[in-house]
Amino acid sequence: MAQNKKQVEQITDMEADFAQWYTDVCKKAELIDYSSIKGMFIYRPYGYAIWENIQRILDDAFKKTRHENVYLPMLIPESLLQKEKDHVEGFAPECAWVTYGGGDKLEERYCIRPTSETLFCEHYANIIHSHRDLPKLYNQWCSVLRWEKTSRPFLRHREFLWQEGHTMHATAQQAMAETERMFNIYADFYKNVLAIPVVKGRKTDKEKFSGAEATYTVECMMHDRKALQGGTSHYFGDGFARAFDITFTGSDNQLHHPFQTSWGVSTRMIAGIIMVHGDNNGLVLPPRVAPIQVVVIPVAQHKQGVLAANQAVADRLRAAGLRVRMDDSDQSPGWKFAEYEMKGVPLRLELGPKDIEKNQCVLVRRDSGEKSFVCLDGIEEAVKTMLDAIHEGLYAKAARNLEENTYACASLEEVKEKMAQRGGFAKTMWCGDEACEIRMKEEAGVSSRCIPLEQEHLGDTCAVCGKSAKHMVYWGVAY
Amino acid sequence: MAQNKKQVEQITDMEADFAQWYTDVCKKAELIDYSSIKGMFIYRPYGYAIWENIQRILDDAFKKTRHENVYLPMLIPESLLQKEKDHVEGFAPECAWVTYGGGDKLEERYCIRPTSETLFCEHYANIIHSHRDLPKLYNQWCSVLRWEKTSRPFLRHREFLWQEGHTMHATAQQAMAETERMFNIYADFYKNVLAIPVVKGRKTDKEKFSGAEATYTVECMMHDRKALQGGTSHYFGDGFARAFDITFTGSDNQLHHPFQTSWGVSTRMIAGIIMVHGDNNGLVLPPRVAPIQVVVIPVAQHKQGVLAANQAVADRLRAAGLRVRMDDSDQSPGWKFAEYEMKGVPLRLELGPKDIEKNQCVLVRRDSGEKSFVCLDGIEEAVKTMLDAIHEGLYAKAARNLEENTYACASLEEVKEKMAQRGGFAKTMWCGDEACEIRMKEEAGVSSRCIPLEQEHLGDTCAVCGKSAKHMVYWGVAY
Repeated sequence: MAQNKKQVEQITDMEADFAQWYTDVCKKAELIDYSSIKGMFIYRPYGYAIWENIQRILDDAFKKTRHENVYLPMLIPESLLQKEKDHVEGFAPECAWVTYGGGDKLEERYCIRPTSETLFCEHYANIIHSHRDLPKLYNQWCSVLRWEKTSRPFLRHREFLWQEGHTMHATAQQAMAETERMFNIYADFYKNVLAIPVVKGRKTDKEKFSGAEATYTVECMMHDRKALQGGTSHYFGDGFARAFDITFTGSDNQLHHPFQTSWGVSTRMIAGIIMVHGDNNGLVLPPRVAPIQVVVIPVAQHKQGVLAANQAVADRLRAAGLRVRMDDSDQSPGWKFAEYEMKGVPLRLELGPKDIEKNQCVLVRRDSGEKSFVCLDGIEEAVKTMLDAIHEGLYAKAARNLEENTYACASLEEVKEKMAQRGGFAKTMWCGDEACEIRMKEEAGVSSRCIPLEQEHLGDTCAVCGKSAKHMVYWGVAY
Repeated sequence: MAQNKKQVEQITDMEADFAQWYTDVCKKAELIDYSSIKGMFIYRPYGYAIWENIQRILDDAFKKTRHENVYLPMLIPESLLQKEKDHVEGFAPECAWVTYGGGDKLEERYCIRPTSETLFCEHYANIIHSHRDLPKLYNQWCSVLRWEKTSRPFLRHREFLWQEGHTMHATAQQAMAETERMFNIYADFYKNVLAIPVVKGRKTDKEKFSGAEATYTVECMMHDRKALQGGTSHYFGDGFARAFDITFTGSDNQLHHPFQTSWGVSTRMIAGIIMVHGDNNGLVLPPRVAPIQVVVIPVAQHKQGVLAANQAVADRLRAAGLRVRMDDSDQSPGWKFAEYEMKGVPLRLELGPKDIEKNQCVLVRRDSGEKSFVCLDGIEEAVKTMLDAIHEGLYAKAARNLEENTYACASLEEVKEKMAQRGGFAKTMWCGDEACEIRMKEEAGVSSRCIPLEQEHLGDTCAVCGKSAKHMVYWGVAY
């Protein structure tokens, strides 16, 4: 166990310095590496494998709801980006520009996509003609570029991986329903796959997406009680459709503009996983996206029959559809224990000569450290049951953190005081004026996270100005 | 059938104008669309779905051989690209350059990756230290940019989708074995999944990849008897490792440079599928990558029980793991027949009131047009057997085309004459001098496709210069 301890000591204590703990985990669990360009990161195999599992499950959900994948160019001509005024104002300052191609200076410069609304609109203008062409339900998996000033692994990259859905509908009602549907798919994914509870709500006008009429968001609370915006779904009305001259002939034989949505999640999800579930031994992965769900570690592997018995168990678990790694390297068991703890593998299975005699193995849960002896007959079911229990346990713990650190405040002063003490989400009534939102930011250092769909009546007046309140709002410090 | 004919008439006769036929199929089968940037294309849902099926099968093969996926940045600093002399000479002329980011002129310009050897080398230099770190078997799915002067759908894009494997090994022998292994995976994939026969060989020095010591290729013959390079696998020796200062401590405790490979295939594969299997009714898809393997078309669908019976058959086929679409739209059966022929769906299943009475359905093969009545009991197996037969039929037809149009020539004159008459692959002996290769290009208009692994002794002297021959070479006109 000496080696075990040694490795654990290499990461910073999360309560002492959460930011450094986070960076340590990203590096030491081999999720990510730095490149020679500031702000551009390398997704290493273990980090990318988490993204692949996320992709597979979300993509199935998108396809089940009849979405189709496409791939559009990564470059946007400057003139195209400028067609929708609010949109270009939001994104132009963060663009990376291509000015030379094949040795020649380009006549028009091209932006590497920061998001693809404009490209989708151009394409939709070409392929939508009749109400029979609607709805169009497209999704794209790709990377996007935003030339940010600061960067942090998974949280803020100049280039990051994401999916962006872009859909067109015959009516505003259908587009709104799509916006909500996808937003609910995200919320369900957080709960059922990532074991992360979310607050579902609408962004204020100040915080919504450039060019959108409404932005819906799922907001998560990290272990340090700061907020992470987990995914957004936007309703555009027919604003882009008008700017890009997209029309269709309705069943009434008249020309109409279609109504539009877009929605996306990114590899920021991995930041959420790390910061919600991780602990001082490293990463803790929710079982449904863990690249390795069970690590099988032979004990006294030099003894006769031990490796064969371990291999047999690993094969049985694999045959049952589980993601399994057996580590029969010449590292000590202590080293291996620490290594797979750091990597957040949900379940460790140990099997040595004595266990084999008793037809049992040892299962150790990564989340609680709980150790149990389990009969090898029916080990597949026992492991699956335990993985589900780990998922539920992680969710319950995260839900407790969210619940215990969400509190009502009656005034800006109270928000300021409590936020300084404990962070978390402060909920207050709000008049709806941006001026009050700005004051909250300036004085309490918090941004509005969302106007939750589930409203509570905390009082009649705005916590900032005292005027008549319109909504209850969640406030927090965000990543 | 009038409507059927009408649609078929919309595409150009492939024997009259193969290039126009090709473009027509790409557009009318809705595989691809043009964007506002010259040479950059939109992969539409049906085209992208073919790529997804290719990806899924290849990715499984890569993972089975213990490769891991990663994602590296899309931008390469100019100084990094320049580290390997031959490599930069090959790619710099085709680079697109980013010169502005976030409103500021960049100190160093960045190239959008045309390929990622340099980025992988930089990363490998950071993570390879000991022989225990080897081999590194990485793969990346992404898009790359090459600022080509001309463009054609799937064949030549300024941006295209591909995979690029990059591996590092302790010994030259292991790296060579990897180069061959991946090249064989490509060859098997062409045969077993795409139903396309290939010629396996090595590229001449003139045709090999910029910076490689050896390039292996799979070469395919299109319906018009022109060549398509189907995929390449490169052996780099330790050239890049030296340029990028990548070293590891061997078990001998000495510092060594590792040996490297890279290998890739791209959405050009889809061009191959179209041009090998397509016909005058449109696309013909090999069943194992077809987004829709069986289209179910109800006959007299307004009659009672017809839709329910069709739905039941479609559900059964889906449950058996097949990709099925049922088209119960209000278009006429004739329109539907032509539509799914254009889209190359391998099998059409028709089911009307009379069939239901007889407990049978009609199956129509896209490749041969062959129609058969099949009992609904055990329809799943009947369909699977027929899809396999279609695969074999497509392969046999393509193999015939390749075989019948590959011929030996004794002289440059003979190559010139026969190539003008019939195209295809001319095989000749060759002395190994680049001068003869250049003459062949200038006078007969052909490039060397490869030095086939299976050599034949056609004579003792080079077909161009008459000097002593070293190899047998395949020549052809390539896309």
